[in-house]
Amino acid sequence: MADGTLRAGGKVPSTRALAAAFGVSRTTVTAVYEQLAAEGFIVTAAGRVARVASQLAPAAPSKPGRRAPPQTTLSAYGRRVENMAMTAMTSGKPLRVDFLYGAVAARDFPALAWRRAHQAALLQHQHRLYYEPPEGDASLRRAVQGYLARARGLLCEAEQIVIVHGSQQAIDLCARVLLDPEDAFAFENPGYLMARRCFEATGAKLLPVPVDDLGLDTTQLPEDRSVRLVYTTPSHQFPLGAMLPIGRRQELMRWAARRQAWIIEDDYDGEFRYGQRPIDALHAIDTQGRVIYIGTFSKALSPQLRLGYLVLPPELVPVFRQAKRLSDRHAPVLEQRALATLIDSGAYERHVRRVRRENERRRSALLDAIAQHLPADARVVGTAAGLHVVLWLPMVRQQDEAAVVAAAREVGVGVYPVSPLYAGPPGRKKPRPAGLIVGYASLDVEQIRKGVRALAAVLHRLVHAGGQGRAVQQAGDFVEPLPRAPGRIAQP
Amino acid sequence: MADGTLRAGGKVPSTRALAAAFGVSRTTVTAVYEQLAAEGFIVTAAGRVARVASQLAPAAPSKPGRRAPPQTTLSAYGRRVENMAMTAMTSGKPLRVDFLYGAVAARDFPALAWRRAHQAALLQHQHRLYYEPPEGDASLRRAVQGYLARARGLLCEAEQIVIVHGSQQAIDLCARVLLDPEDAFAFENPGYLMARRCFEATGAKLLPVPVDDLGLDTTQLPEDRSVRLVYTTPSHQFPLGAMLPIGRRQELMRWAARRQAWIIEDDYDGEFRYGQRPIDALHAIDTQGRVIYIGTFSKALSPQLRLGYLVLPPELVPVFRQAKRLSDRHAPVLEQRALATLIDSGAYERHVRRVRRENERRRSALLDAIAQHLPADARVVGTAAGLHVVLWLPMVRQQDEAAVVAAAREVGVGVYPVSPLYAGPPGRKKPRPAGLIVGYASLDVEQIRKGVRALAAVLHRLVHAGGQGRAVQQAGDFVEPLPRAPGRIAQP
Repeated sequence: MADGTLRAGGKVPSTRALAAAFGVSRTTVTAVYEQLAAEGFIVTAAGRVARVASQLAPAAPSKPGRRAPPQTTLSAYGRRVENMAMTAMTSGKPLRVDFLYGAVAARDFPALAWRRAHQAALLQHQHRLYYEPPEGDASLRRAVQGYLARARGLLCEAEQIVIVHGSQQAIDLCARVLLDPEDAFAFENPGYLMARRCFEATGAKLLPVPVDDLGLDTTQLPEDRSVRLVYTTPSHQFPLGAMLPIGRRQELMRWAARRQAWIIEDDYDGEFRYGQRPIDALHAIDTQGRVIYIGTFSKALSPQLRLGYLVLPPELVPVFRQAKRLSDRHAPVLEQRALATLIDSGAYERHVRRVRRENERRRSALLDAIAQHLPADARVVGTAAGLHVVLWLPMVRQQDEAAVVAAAREVGVGVYPVSPLYAGPPGRKKPRPAGLIVGYASLDVEQIRKGVRALAAVLHRLVHAGGQGRAVQQAGDFVEPLPRAPGRIAQP
Repeated sequence: MADGTLRAGGKVPSTRALAAAFGVSRTTVTAVYEQLAAEGFIVTAAGRVARVASQLAPAAPSKPGRRAPPQTTLSAYGRRVENMAMTAMTSGKPLRVDFLYGAVAARDFPALAWRRAHQAALLQHQHRLYYEPPEGDASLRRAVQGYLARARGLLCEAEQIVIVHGSQQAIDLCARVLLDPEDAFAFENPGYLMARRCFEATGAKLLPVPVDDLGLDTTQLPEDRSVRLVYTTPSHQFPLGAMLPIGRRQELMRWAARRQAWIIEDDYDGEFRYGQRPIDALHAIDTQGRVIYIGTFSKALSPQLRLGYLVLPPELVPVFRQAKRLSDRHAPVLEQRALATLIDSGAYERHVRRVRRENERRRSALLDAIAQHLPADARVVGTAAGLHVVLWLPMVRQQDEAAVVAAAREVGVGVYPVSPLYAGPPGRKKPRPAGLIVGYASLDVEQIRKGVRALAAVLHRLVHAGGQGRAVQQAGDFVEPLPRAPGRIAQP
């Protein structure tokens, strides 16, 4: 039938004849004919001869290699996304010391507690398994509400919380629900690339807002009528690490009120502040319902869990729930319940404190090693919080940043260029030195020391090969004042 | 500072004075000042008097109740989604017997095997935890590839597979990547509402294609130039249950080639075919790379896992990977690895066979009870496969469908109206009887019998209260030929 030997509408052999011809039992042939009939290849009726279905066409003879590839018709979103550059951080050969930002140490994960909590969730009685509400498990939302009040000074109702698949989905939902192609969005420059890409994918216009040593420069927020939102990381600016001071926070709030704009506060590593207690979320001073707060468990537990949450102004709750339901129904139930158990039992906060101490040790080792091995004018910023720092290298020109990164990879050290996180035209007014993002949460203290020593050797070699004109600039060539490290405050 | 008592730029008391005034230690006050300085409330410098930050503005006195709600500016997508009707199936009072479609029995879930597989995934060594590629875990993609070849006659490369958060996300990604507001999409009528809503949310135009007793009526596929895709459920049409015969499958392929359109094949319950072996996926006859196949683990394992997958034409792989990465990075790693272990060990397919037998028993009980208790002209369709049937009630008019559903709920029986799954203008040419969707996968045999008996009593009462003019129509009033049950084929 497929190749036309039996033509459409024609008779097929009787089951008896075919069984005889192939030497198989008639039961077998009958079963085959039933299957063929069920699939619509043949038409049968009691007492009549079976026939090939009349609308059946033999497949056109295939001409391998000659078939034209189908014309791809993507949506505008699909076309924008298809060729979007996103940094693939983990390609290439394995590294001895990888200062990969966003990675956490596997041994920091509370595997035993997670296993127990997951098992308890599995044993929790349900008489049937069905879809859950899109906003997520009620017990987890209550647990997150309590945690936010205790740890982040953020008071909200559990109804304002929507559990999502990590902060990436939170950002994506904001982009879809709030931005049209004719809109604009304000964005920290430099800023978190995967968030910028989400907003850009909507077709909306990027309005970069400079970041200085105090974080987002709120005096430069755009007054365009088309601006709908600003994305910001006030607890620990990504990547430069400043904590947005209260004056700017207030200015940001006034701007949002004036522009009727939303503030998306991505509190991606708010748990990790060293020395002082963690700063309250920006959300805590929001009296107008303009702040959309995004939290994640990627840093404190694991980026592979894919669990995060939104805290929404009440008026946005219905539309985000609908959008979440259409996107993927809801977050997986067992993981949500396991996490709720972890938080409710206090184990999550004990774990956060333990991991914070662990990361404080890593951070100290990193800063000590940098002070000891790197040239004196290397500047480290963003050290007061988080799981990474930015290392400015005034002895290396910005255009040689990639060469430093490549040379470090050659000796098995992974560091990451800061330049891709800058938006805007290449023709900048002031030159900027090379900058490296150095994450430390996945490494142990010994690796960190080794890595910095190797990086220092690479820099030394590159700078002193200066005569050959590659990846080199003498220290002191830069006129731009370097970002000050935040948090260095003299005693009153 | 917040209420203006200490004005911007003004001095704050010395630590010594404040400590004396409050009777606390100077260390405490110093710690407080450090925190205030870190948050930017005060400016300090060694040897100088600390001052209130100059840009600090006291909060405007709040006038509760007078604050105007913020003007909500949603995207076009947000506005479309905000008020979209989606059937909330599980609201209302608890039911004694709930024929809820999409639910599965909790005791069918292989909890022990899942726990072991999950535990093994937890113990699998990783030196760090970082984001995985958006297409999902390589071991799971290979496992799914093998499963599809064995169980669904679908041959593909593991590279064509993208693991997603359930079929809902697969559908949503298709909608985003393939549809613009000026496009159109063909859709089974009646069809799966949550898929239709996803496509409608893009702003694209719905072109309903009638479904008859053989499934999607491929002679009525639209020839509009703007049509980009068709969504179809060829293994077991949702909700009416037909299996699309081979002739129509071929016609669908020719239409897609002619219109350069994509075919989205949602194989939502392809594992559950009774009597015959499961029919091969439509994808198996796709020689042009036009079919996007969607599979899910919601029916065979649990809808709460939120795991499914796409099998993509090679040319669409890059854009779907990018879209998945922007949407939420990737599916959770532990669950993916647990599932891969389950499939690779053979436990998954043993489980599917066991659950298929279980559901075959439920189905038999349902069909027997319907034959025994419901009026003789009640017609059941879609029985050859899947986890639900549609029950047509010629003795009840379509406009009284909701009254039957409500009356059943009154006696504790959940059945679901078929009408919301029909798209298109209310003024239909031919009347249609009331139809109920009856899911059985979450119930035991005894519940099913009880539920059907109770439903029969409800129908009897409603029909014989006919004199009162409510929810009533005598049998035989309908002229429209009722859908034939598929799969009733005489022996050749």
